[in-house]
Amino acid sequence: MADQAQKRTPAPSVAKVIASLETEFGERLSKAAAVRERFGKDESFHASIPPDAVVTPRSTEEVSRIVRLCAEHQVPVIPYGTGTALEGHVAALHGGISINMQEMNEVIEVHDEDLDVVVQPGVTRKQLNQYLHDRGLFFPIDPGADASIGGMTACRASGTNAVRYGTMRENVLALTVVLADGRVIQTSRRARKSAAGYDLTRLFVGSEGTLGVITEITLRLYGIPEAISSAVCTFPDLDSAVATVITTIQHGVPVARIELLDEAQIDAINRYSKTDLAVAPTLFLEFHGSSRGVEEQSGIVQEIAADSGGSNFQWTTNTEERNRLWQARHDAAYACKALHPDGEIWATDVCVPISQLAECIRETQRDIRESNLVAPIAGHAGDGNFHLALPVDKNDAEKHERAQQLHERMVMRALAMGGTCTGEHGIGYGKLDFLVAEHGEAVSVMRAIKQALDPDNIMNPGKILRV
Amino acid sequence: MADQAQKRTPAPSVAKVIASLETEFGERLSKAAAVRERFGKDESFHASIPPDAVVTPRSTEEVSRIVRLCAEHQVPVIPYGTGTALEGHVAALHGGISINMQEMNEVIEVHDEDLDVVVQPGVTRKQLNQYLHDRGLFFPIDPGADASIGGMTACRASGTNAVRYGTMRENVLALTVVLADGRVIQTSRRARKSAAGYDLTRLFVGSEGTLGVITEITLRLYGIPEAISSAVCTFPDLDSAVATVITTIQHGVPVARIELLDEAQIDAINRYSKTDLAVAPTLFLEFHGSSRGVEEQSGIVQEIAADSGGSNFQWTTNTEERNRLWQARHDAAYACKALHPDGEIWATDVCVPISQLAECIRETQRDIRESNLVAPIAGHAGDGNFHLALPVDKNDAEKHERAQQLHERMVMRALAMGGTCTGEHGIGYGKLDFLVAEHGEAVSVMRAIKQALDPDNIMNPGKILRV
Repeated sequence: MADQAQKRTPAPSVAKVIASLETEFGERLSKAAAVRERFGKDESFHASIPPDAVVTPRSTEEVSRIVRLCAEHQVPVIPYGTGTALEGHVAALHGGISINMQEMNEVIEVHDEDLDVVVQPGVTRKQLNQYLHDRGLFFPIDPGADASIGGMTACRASGTNAVRYGTMRENVLALTVVLADGRVIQTSRRARKSAAGYDLTRLFVGSEGTLGVITEITLRLYGIPEAISSAVCTFPDLDSAVATVITTIQHGVPVARIELLDEAQIDAINRYSKTDLAVAPTLFLEFHGSSRGVEEQSGIVQEIAADSGGSNFQWTTNTEERNRLWQARHDAAYACKALHPDGEIWATDVCVPISQLAECIRETQRDIRESNLVAPIAGHAGDGNFHLALPVDKNDAEKHERAQQLHERMVMRALAMGGTCTGEHGIGYGKLDFLVAEHGEAVSVMRAIKQALDPDNIMNPGKILRV
Repeated sequence: MADQAQKRTPAPSVAKVIASLETEFGERLSKAAAVRERFGKDESFHASIPPDAVVTPRSTEEVSRIVRLCAEHQVPVIPYGTGTALEGHVAALHGGISINMQEMNEVIEVHDEDLDVVVQPGVTRKQLNQYLHDRGLFFPIDPGADASIGGMTACRASGTNAVRYGTMRENVLALTVVLADGRVIQTSRRARKSAAGYDLTRLFVGSEGTLGVITEITLRLYGIPEAISSAVCTFPDLDSAVATVITTIQHGVPVARIELLDEAQIDAINRYSKTDLAVAPTLFLEFHGSSRGVEEQSGIVQEIAADSGGSNFQWTTNTEERNRLWQARHDAAYACKALHPDGEIWATDVCVPISQLAECIRETQRDIRESNLVAPIAGHAGDGNFHLALPVDKNDAEKHERAQQLHERMVMRALAMGGTCTGEHGIGYGKLDFLVAEHGEAVSVMRAIKQALDPDNIMNPGKILRV
């Protein structure tokens, strides 16, 4: 691929933009093939599609000038955070300039009393939490990877804590955005709520760089809980595990994390981590609150789990013990990769109403067996969201075709159950057709908004929508 | 005003639309002056501006046909819920057809396991909670009035419970919307979260009927808490009351309601309700949870309040006692009205970061004194949101001018503090200029969206934005 990137000759308009950027940005503009290759690829199995150049701004004003220049020449703009997306979000499908946000990585202001923080988009979530720790504050959204806050905002990330704290949708208070013509707007104020006009904040959250470049983000924060406890419990079957999740949430237990791993996932972890966990549907839980509160919560869930046939309920507030209990969950992604040492993993997700979760997973497991594939399932069960780790074997076209068909059936199954084609990974260019299958006529409204805000289609073109 | 309504002659295009609607809707189309007068007015002091006719559909399909007809003739469409808005939202500024949603008042489906419900827009929040009660479920958003769910969605309502449960922004899962050309879309699925495309749900929540007519709403529900407790506490000054709120929230106490009434509000209540409450800043609190949980929560808050100088902390879980404790809060609106038996009340609101709340209220109180007006303040303190009840005396132009200037200074003060010109009442046509003051260049983005989705400006024209 690096060869291919090297050989590609940029269009004349791109060459002009690159020349101007070189003058202004000097060494912060790169045309090196290896750099372009890296910025054209995320963590998915999608091949790199390199941009024509990569520029690294340090301020909103610089981003504005870059976008204005690209707009003049109708050259595509692709924002890049950490490259941890999973649906080809950063691929330069139509060439253009990748804007590397990694040097815009300052925590600008923390407001302890208001429980909010203003950050630049290149700040990663781990960096942010390290920064906040001594103030007794934290930002809960945890999509697994140490993604940038800008990327998490653009992709409406969620992850394990969403069942309690919500997703980026609920936790972004305001944004600074550079529009497709280079103008800069603030989408909202720091106030906790507002009824003033259209909700532009939520419009840009999840827009995947297709409506503008996010250059500043105000986030909600939370006090680090006084006590955190973890629990693990195994179940005779999927239905009893999911019934435990449903009853727990109906009961109003403010569980912070409630993760479901299926037999295949546990088996993969046993192989990878040399553990001997019972190969059965397993829930991993975490509780946040006061010492008495977490004890009460876990007591209630233990009863609920027992009523549903759960067994071997292990519970602890000790940090080391907690890490040991959750190690299996943390190893899940690596364990999936280890199943296919010579291939790649296609990590995909859907999200369904929780009443449909057991059936959706069960049907998908049946389909996996019938497709003669190995594909573990792990899910943020409290949200009805689950992941499938499909093998990608590019040297076995027939196997890849089987995986693709399985994937399509899973998404269509989720849609038929009132679910969505992606709970947290986004559309990128990997799920364009599924967006249409899911939203139908509403896609025309999304397209009208895209065309109103980006009439020349220069903002991350080819993602979310075909224009 | 009724006379004025009677005399107005509709434009020829409106006459055609009305004739067609009469054919289809028969008695469900009204041109009667008294009816039009009623549908042109909300609960604010803004005068009625009657529509040319009022039509009462019973289905999404009927709404679609009405809007399609209006679109053909470029006749304005104004959706009407219960008329409890506060910024002239239902006024027919440019004439047109008011769509009365009150006969679309069915609860369509409750999903107990998923904790969600699908309703028609005319269902009111009290009707919904009555319906849900026997299932052990409730919908928490409480803007005071028994508003329709459609109106609450269109105006992004919030109210007393928002500090714990969020606003309509967080609690609407999906919408069915009739667009400006009559097409019908679903904005989302029932899944708890999604990363699939632009967040159309949040775009229509708070759009005040200017982008489409909402004809079906899917809402999040919650289990009725096992225990509810209430508390009241008085403070020597505003700062100590607000400090108690800030520390409570920083501490992670999941308080369900935390309301602040100022001295003027308490004084008004004493006069109205013949009570002898201490005329001092007062917090009204409510806790939801398990029996042990609410006890723990209120114990923590009592300590925090005492540390800040709070006194006379009264606490109870008994329903009758709870109602007695909160009676003063419930009487607040009536008490404000009783201050001006011959006039009206101008109920306005702003919302600021909570760290600015005490100063914003204190400065506003000073301004009220210096303006020689009586205007109580009551606020959803946990969100930094407060209301001012200004007197409206239409026979005293000088006094009204003083009230208007005070209002403008309060809004600009809130904006200067990083706040918003309205936390929950919305823009309507009463706060158009403040929207511009708040959002600046971002208003052009709102306008671009409005023009893309409603090119002929027929959807509740003149509200939120000038086009």
